[in-house]
Amino acid sequence: MSDTWVDVPDGSHFPIHNLPYGVFSRPGERPRVGVAIGDFVLDLAGVSAAGLLDAPDRGGVRDWFACDALNAFMAAGPRAWRATRERLTELLTDSAYADRVRSHLTPRAEVTLHLPWRVADYVDFYSSQHHAENVGRIFRPDQQPLTPNWKHLPIGYHGRAGTVVCSGTPIVRPCGQRKAPGDPAPTFGPSRRLDIEAEVGFVVGVPSKLGEPVPVERFREHVFGVVLVNDWSARDIQAWEYVPLGPFLGKSFATSVSPWVVPLDALEAARITPPAQDPEPLPYLRGGEGLDLALEIRLNGTVVSRPPFAAMYWTPAQQLAHLTVNGASLRTGDLYASGTVSGPERSQRGSLLELAWNGAEPVKLEDGSTRVFLEDGDTVSISATAPGTGGVRIGFGEVVGTIEPARR
Amino acid sequence: MSDTWVDVPDGSHFPIHNLPYGVFSRPGERPRVGVAIGDFVLDLAGVSAAGLLDAPDRGGVRDWFACDALNAFMAAGPRAWRATRERLTELLTDSAYADRVRSHLTPRAEVTLHLPWRVADYVDFYSSQHHAENVGRIFRPDQQPLTPNWKHLPIGYHGRAGTVVCSGTPIVRPCGQRKAPGDPAPTFGPSRRLDIEAEVGFVVGVPSKLGEPVPVERFREHVFGVVLVNDWSARDIQAWEYVPLGPFLGKSFATSVSPWVVPLDALEAARITPPAQDPEPLPYLRGGEGLDLALEIRLNGTVVSRPPFAAMYWTPAQQLAHLTVNGASLRTGDLYASGTVSGPERSQRGSLLELAWNGAEPVKLEDGSTRVFLEDGDTVSISATAPGTGGVRIGFGEVVGTIEPARR
Repeated sequence: MSDTWVDVPDGSHFPIHNLPYGVFSRPGERPRVGVAIGDFVLDLAGVSAAGLLDAPDRGGVRDWFACDALNAFMAAGPRAWRATRERLTELLTDSAYADRVRSHLTPRAEVTLHLPWRVADYVDFYSSQHHAENVGRIFRPDQQPLTPNWKHLPIGYHGRAGTVVCSGTPIVRPCGQRKAPGDPAPTFGPSRRLDIEAEVGFVVGVPSKLGEPVPVERFREHVFGVVLVNDWSARDIQAWEYVPLGPFLGKSFATSVSPWVVPLDALEAARITPPAQDPEPLPYLRGGEGLDLALEIRLNGTVVSRPPFAAMYWTPAQQLAHLTVNGASLRTGDLYASGTVSGPERSQRGSLLELAWNGAEPVKLEDGSTRVFLEDGDTVSISATAPGTGGVRIGFGEVVGTIEPARR
Repeated sequence: MSDTWVDVPDGSHFPIHNLPYGVFSRPGERPRVGVAIGDFVLDLAGVSAAGLLDAPDRGGVRDWFACDALNAFMAAGPRAWRATRERLTELLTDSAYADRVRSHLTPRAEVTLHLPWRVADYVDFYSSQHHAENVGRIFRPDQQPLTPNWKHLPIGYHGRAGTVVCSGTPIVRPCGQRKAPGDPAPTFGPSRRLDIEAEVGFVVGVPSKLGEPVPVERFREHVFGVVLVNDWSARDIQAWEYVPLGPFLGKSFATSVSPWVVPLDALEAARITPPAQDPEPLPYLRGGEGLDLALEIRLNGTVVSRPPFAAMYWTPAQQLAHLTVNGASLRTGDLYASGTVSGPERSQRGSLLELAWNGAEPVKLEDGSTRVFLEDGDTVSISATAPGTGGVRIGFGEVVGTIEPARR
């Protein structure tokens, strides 16, 4: 097992087996690409300018990292990703490089993290059977909890790419139209039912051509890495607007993502067989693997849920195949998220709507207060870990956001 | 009335009162920004490089046009748009400039037109009452044709920005899951119910800040211009997928836009009072004007419909106010489309679904054939004209697309 000459604390989300990419800046400097290692960030713009990443198969390397987004590197494709990862592993494990590399390390506590890539299109799926059944039972108690199409295709829709924000961005409580079933007419004002959705997002690196589907088995030729997503949701706005064309303003005010993009290659040890699918899906949706990610949701510091991504019904490769089967093209920077991750247990639900069962079962916090939805000032943090190579767990860091009062 | 020294044929969509912007290339040259005048395109990269557009209030002018997208110019804002339009009018009407400007004119027949701007987010509304009622009667005959929210808010959803294509791009028939109500299970294959939606699109120039709504009265501070949109729709894929999260693959394979962006300032004479709204909308949705655009849909050369944009229930300013009322920010390049434009008459319906009433009333073409949905090889062209200043009509050119067979 390789190990690094960098001092990595026990239990760090960022051991040598992870090496996630992000965009950071030091005070007074421009944003640039870096890699997280222990409590440090390695400045890849500096490392590449020093010639330490040059290689025949990394031709564009000096353009990939001295910029404020991962897009150029993500577009370079799997061979470039793998070669860069191997070289970074070498630089951080071979102590012969320590002197030349150490000057490019900065404590993470001293840097600002930015949205790590320019988001092209954003698609949100709905692929947890437990979540979909919970929502169905809450909102349509007189019907089958799953719609007839649910087990035949990964239901998805487009979200607003321009309001995908980096972890830490304050979330202003949205205003909008709300109408409870008994109200005679809608009223306008701040959402009273502001919620979270704990999700896992997949970031596309390599584009595809218009008219050419990406089959399940080509998932790894296009997808660069994985982030955590909090798909903030205003349930009252959503409930009034969503028939017949789906969620719009109930979601589009903000979607937060974690600042470190974990490469798929760091998640080799997390690959698992997904739950059995019955009925068997149509041929274009057969195949694909799950990922054994353990999520954790904290509300003002209290762990309120531990959703297991391993329980997802539809896999990321199936989602990508479905997304493109009509010929829709991919662009570098496309983000697609899993939909709320909920497990079978109450303690594994990925939204407050489910955790507090639409207000009927308030969630208790350690300070003695309770929540059915989010209050102003509340802070939500979603984190995750996964089995890494080398027997240590790797992590995603966290995606965090604090609710600010509505502006009127 | 000003008139131009350029020879503009009678009935041209592009008289001096229009001056729409686009992106074009001559054989072997890079794309650049141009303006349509009569049968010519004026090369704005050339005109600005010659110093003919320099002025204190057009500081960035040389960066706006020597590029392959309108985004930089659109971001410059209304003062820059107006000053540029005034200067172009001067250059094209004052014969003293004719010798210096003529060398920058190229016959439009000799150039290739490109997607005129980089699309940020794409939102599609559903704002024709006639269209929404027709669709409701066809698909939900046992219910009220309009959903309860329809007259309280302009219903909308996000579409796929990455598959917005320029007029002329071939449209490959999409494959996907279809399931008729009587079928035991979905099947996979080419869409059998491929349709058009004739729409009008609004292009955002000036961005807005996250958390800050754009009120109705600020519409003209943000929106740069207007295009025609054909929102191709696979009705069978859409019908099976759209509950509960809305349209996805039934739409995301392609959305075509016209190559010339008509500035709002060219549409002063087209401003009209929109239809009365009852019930009165909530305060944030009050105000806004309609536009008197006359659309025309041709299928293989036969005019099959003349939808009146003047009949739209929700106005573009109301749509923009709604889109941002939850704090969602705008980016330069955002496109939002009106939704299918249908008038009260049968001859004014904006989709084949409505024109052929879900297959019950086939549409007759001049070649003696009939259509209920699109066949491979069919060509659809949508054009529009509007009252212009100076008493002449101005036009939008057309958005055209031909259906190619599915790829299997």
